[in-house]
Amino acid sequence: MRKFLAAAPVLALALATLAARADEGMWTFDNFPAAQVKAKYGVDVTPAFLDHVRGAAVRLSSGCSASVVTASGLVLTNNHCVRDCAQSLSTPQTDYVKDGFQATRREDEKLCPGMQAEILEAISDVTPRVTAAAADKTGQDFVRARDGAIAAVEKEGCAGQEALYRCQVITLYQGGQYKLYRYRKYSDVRLVAAPEAQTAFFGGDPDNFNFPRYDLDFSFVRLYEKNRAVATPDHLTWRTAPPRDGEPVFVAGNPGTTQRLLTAEQLETLRDKSLPTTLILYAELRGRLIQFAHGGAERARIADDLLFSLENSFKAYSGQQKALVDPALIAAKHRGDNELKAKVAANPALAAATGDAWGEIAQAQVAQRELYDAYTLQESRAGLRSSLFGYARALVRAAQERAKPNSERLPGYTDSQLALLEKQVLDAEPVYPELEQLALEFWLTKLREYLTVDSPATKLFLGKESPEALAARLAKSGLADPAMRRRLWDGGMAAINASGDPMIKYVLATDAASRAVRKDWETRVTGPVDRAQERIARARFAVYGAGDYPDATFSLRLSYGKITGWVNNGTSVAPFTRYAGLWQRATGFAPFELAPRWRDAQGKVDGNVIFDFTSDNDIIGGNSGSPIIDAQGAVIGAIFDGNIDSLGGAFGFDPRVNRAVSVSAVAIAEALRKVYGNAALADELTGR
Amino acid sequence: MRKFLAAAPVLALALATLAARADEGMWTFDNFPAAQVKAKYGVDVTPAFLDHVRGAAVRLSSGCSASVVTASGLVLTNNHCVRDCAQSLSTPQTDYVKDGFQATRREDEKLCPGMQAEILEAISDVTPRVTAAAADKTGQDFVRARDGAIAAVEKEGCAGQEALYRCQVITLYQGGQYKLYRYRKYSDVRLVAAPEAQTAFFGGDPDNFNFPRYDLDFSFVRLYEKNRAVATPDHLTWRTAPPRDGEPVFVAGNPGTTQRLLTAEQLETLRDKSLPTTLILYAELRGRLIQFAHGGAERARIADDLLFSLENSFKAYSGQQKALVDPALIAAKHRGDNELKAKVAANPALAAATGDAWGEIAQAQVAQRELYDAYTLQESRAGLRSSLFGYARALVRAAQERAKPNSERLPGYTDSQLALLEKQVLDAEPVYPELEQLALEFWLTKLREYLTVDSPATKLFLGKESPEALAARLAKSGLADPAMRRRLWDGGMAAINASGDPMIKYVLATDAASRAVRKDWETRVTGPVDRAQERIARARFAVYGAGDYPDATFSLRLSYGKITGWVNNGTSVAPFTRYAGLWQRATGFAPFELAPRWRDAQGKVDGNVIFDFTSDNDIIGGNSGSPIIDAQGAVIGAIFDGNIDSLGGAFGFDPRVNRAVSVSAVAIAEALRKVYGNAALADELTGR
Repeated sequence: MRKFLAAAPVLALALATLAARADEGMWTFDNFPAAQVKAKYGVDVTPAFLDHVRGAAVRLSSGCSASVVTASGLVLTNNHCVRDCAQSLSTPQTDYVKDGFQATRREDEKLCPGMQAEILEAISDVTPRVTAAAADKTGQDFVRARDGAIAAVEKEGCAGQEALYRCQVITLYQGGQYKLYRYRKYSDVRLVAAPEAQTAFFGGDPDNFNFPRYDLDFSFVRLYEKNRAVATPDHLTWRTAPPRDGEPVFVAGNPGTTQRLLTAEQLETLRDKSLPTTLILYAELRGRLIQFAHGGAERARIADDLLFSLENSFKAYSGQQKALVDPALIAAKHRGDNELKAKVAANPALAAATGDAWGEIAQAQVAQRELYDAYTLQESRAGLRSSLFGYARALVRAAQERAKPNSERLPGYTDSQLALLEKQVLDAEPVYPELEQLALEFWLTKLREYLTVDSPATKLFLGKESPEALAARLAKSGLADPAMRRRLWDGGMAAINASGDPMIKYVLATDAASRAVRKDWETRVTGPVDRAQERIARARFAVYGAGDYPDATFSLRLSYGKITGWVNNGTSVAPFTRYAGLWQRATGFAPFELAPRWRDAQGKVDGNVIFDFTSDNDIIGGNSGSPIIDAQGAVIGAIFDGNIDSLGGAFGFDPRVNRAVSVSAVAIAEALRKVYGNAALADELTGR
Repeated sequence: MRKFLAAAPVLALALATLAARADEGMWTFDNFPAAQVKAKYGVDVTPAFLDHVRGAAVRLSSGCSASVVTASGLVLTNNHCVRDCAQSLSTPQTDYVKDGFQATRREDEKLCPGMQAEILEAISDVTPRVTAAAADKTGQDFVRARDGAIAAVEKEGCAGQEALYRCQVITLYQGGQYKLYRYRKYSDVRLVAAPEAQTAFFGGDPDNFNFPRYDLDFSFVRLYEKNRAVATPDHLTWRTAPPRDGEPVFVAGNPGTTQRLLTAEQLETLRDKSLPTTLILYAELRGRLIQFAHGGAERARIADDLLFSLENSFKAYSGQQKALVDPALIAAKHRGDNELKAKVAANPALAAATGDAWGEIAQAQVAQRELYDAYTLQESRAGLRSSLFGYARALVRAAQERAKPNSERLPGYTDSQLALLEKQVLDAEPVYPELEQLALEFWLTKLREYLTVDSPATKLFLGKESPEALAARLAKSGLADPAMRRRLWDGGMAAINASGDPMIKYVLATDAASRAVRKDWETRVTGPVDRAQERIARARFAVYGAGDYPDATFSLRLSYGKITGWVNNGTSVAPFTRYAGLWQRATGFAPFELAPRWRDAQGKVDGNVIFDFTSDNDIIGGNSGSPIIDAQGAVIGAIFDGNIDSLGGAFGFDPRVNRAVSVSAVAIAEALRKVYGNAALADELTGR
């Protein structure tokens, strides 16, 4: 879940309990408002159309979306969705992030470590089974019973077919529905083509979430099985005609997280605690990384991917916070909560079933604020971006959890999830000791700062060492070696206990404390909140019907809308940029510096070709790489960003100003043929 | 104004409009509640006592407080108040910050660049004159008329005596009173003694604002005139008996800023905009500086002072924000505002005079949020800690402003303020080009980020250059040379216009834009707010009387209270630490590493001597270095911090948990004699 989080949500929020609205919604494929689309755009979204799009829509384990665009398993996504892959494949001598990557022959396509592609095949409703399992439970017992039922459902759903399928229970409407999503999975995904980072992300962080924009943010990967490209007859066709202002468009992808159904008190916790803490942590880490990258070209290279992802998240969260501090937003949310509460109260049976769900959530906010720092620093973000810590924790916990029955394990370690975790732990990826030391030192310093010097947690996680000394010691871990990780994975607890590796020993010594904080959190926060949210969701269905869309949960959704600009503070912003504008915006200084190929390309590409464009689709982080599709089901581009107004879309959609930003299919083909010398790939796309 | 900002203000706020309270208040010397103190502690605070204390209380232009403690101009303050001085006197070979400084002979005492000491001699009321000048004005005209009257009053007040005196109009009760404070000034202040930074600031940032504490945070400077130590018969005596639990104590010093009289809407602006933005900016700069300091011992040395000050401010602001996000605080403030509004409304004459002052302030908050980024980045914090930018702006503006009549100049450039400004610009201080480049690059990057790439401001301040390239160019400015600054100061606009220096040219090219943003700010924010605050202040006097204390304004105040610990989450915290605890807390790793002298001192000093102690005096940043004085007028220590609970004291005082932290006079004398080999200084203090 990388880019564009979808803003000025105040008006929309006031309407958020009504079903029909302007081009809003991240719709599930089994509840798409086809009649609304027909009425507004005259387009028939038939079951066949939905099946066609679903069958070509891809979810990537890098947190992105994508689509199959040829019959030979070729997948379109964003450059920033393969940035981590390109970094992993690079060396001090060969930098695919900086210079881009072009395979003109199949044999040059390269495996992306840790990446899995998934295509949704079927959806089934498992709500009664999941809710029944936890119906009489509270606190952590509620969480464990629900998660246990989910683990069982997932295991059964793919029984005997685990090698080719992944089953995942998707929570919708905050527990109002649980659906089993069955995915065909592809764990051999290879990089085919990616432009230079400076071309894909021209304008860098300053232009991020802005428009007009000149970013060639595409890439291609290909699905393989048994070392051969997968045949994919169900693919989207590549449209060679340019996008048209006003034409209806659809976005199929996996929006990561929206929080439009949270109560007002939950939004206040976000505003007062979670988001500010995150922004401050990210700001300091950003400063450390920028200064680290000033220490030479190789340091800049190894810091690049982390810095990109951090700055992108920072800007997205900043936009969310800006929306939340508008007093009108929280006030509108209070009004919405109160309206639903009043309707529930007016129905005695519903009131009895719902109980004081809002009050329970409000009460849990006190615990959430109190436990947030400890939970974040010891558990949910422990290690703060250190790969070595991540490997060690996964190895230790996988060994511990595999010894338990499937339904009693921590989420992430159940049978249905172990295959992907194993791939992510064991695939070879570079580890940079200097960067590890920086991340670990930062984490340990913040742990001491937030939890205070004299707390038992700081004494356990730091002992008498300083963060600097301990980080230096832990960064010497041998877990950078995939063979060592393989031995520890296969060897289970016996191998883990026998290991002399400093990071393994460190995680063994501290993990019980991390699990204890998690237990507190589940008992006092997750349990009460999730249990109350389920009841609010059921009350919402009872009062308003089930015609609305659920919050985003990194699962497949379809958004409809049209290609359109918007009015920004009284000024019209046109929906298109064209290639000619790229050379006008270039300054010669990063991040407005053209890659060498593009400095020389001004006469080669057609300046009139539409480069990037905006539409009013309702999208958010996780939609990166999603195909944007015309009424005939052909792909006309790939979503890669939202405008700055869209960032508050986490809390509500404002159709006047929320815009999605795509790179056009015509610009991609033009670049492949005229700049990257990859006619073979362009031909594959356009069917020549 | 460095350390300890005074927290859990909710209860106190609810009472904030009542006159008499537990040990609360930063009282002016002309309105001290002697009767209250007599009733509570049995101590007679006579006019003679007040005169004695006032005559020995020192304000330092480094933003600290201090006191004269011997007849030969010897002044006690904190080590962190001379940290900047010690850094300025250091070289790569001789590091007085790290190793400390001890002069055992007068001739070894060294001038602190830019430092001025001031002792208050007289207070007179100039309210009618200042308010009359602006009575019929609004917006920026109000600001200019008021500031013009202040400039005239200050100039007249010290006419003919400018060499020895400084006159300053102090705004009290947010414009309810304007008082002329007349100070005897000393511009030759020399460093006498300071411990190692690691001893003064043992525990570093992690222990900052915490207690129990083991910080020897003292230093001594001496006042000189005509190259001789100033005779100071009016000094505090040094008490050789240890502090006693429960004894009444007084703190005379210059608390910097409190905001207890702000309206609820103003606090919301702080919570939603000013403080979060500041925290995020400081966090990133902190990250950059920490990583910069990892680049070697000399980089660590030159970054030290800036990093210390940044981390201290960051922690203080974090504590303020923590107080503000407690919903009870803003709710209590709304109740207080509404109570006063209701009382005003009940009195037709008062209602007519007050008008809709609260509404005007609320309206100005919209403008404040809108203009904050531009005002901060182009004007109030332009250059973000770059000395070269600071010099250039002062030189350019001083040349421009001196050409205008005194009453029409920008604040800071009036006749009464030019002498200190000149000293600060022209005194020799080291400038570190690498650090300059870091600060300038950071500033320009943030300007582009916050104001956006395509804004006219970014285009003016950055042109087509990148922040990195422009910062590197500007860091080559020759303004590090005091002789060059002297030529430009003396040469006025002709010299400025003729200068080829890149930083001078840069400020000349951008200053009109900065002044334009300032004009907007004064027109839409400062003017309406200050004008409304004056009326609210008068209404408050009319309703509640004039018996309360004003918000802190870095002017001399007296706080009373007692030596006492507190109860922290159910656990009693004793008011004293003793030397023996220092060795118990040491770990061998910074910031818990002992200086070499102290590693060896365990058998030399008496482990029972009281080291640091807490009292319930109402203090805040700017009180650093203040003498803490017993009922007989003898000094028993120096304030150097507040506890963590005290940080929200910016908005209200909670007598249950707000504590001031001092280093004891007995610990200082013990250290001088037994560790620092400075018996001469100890003898001078104790009168042996």
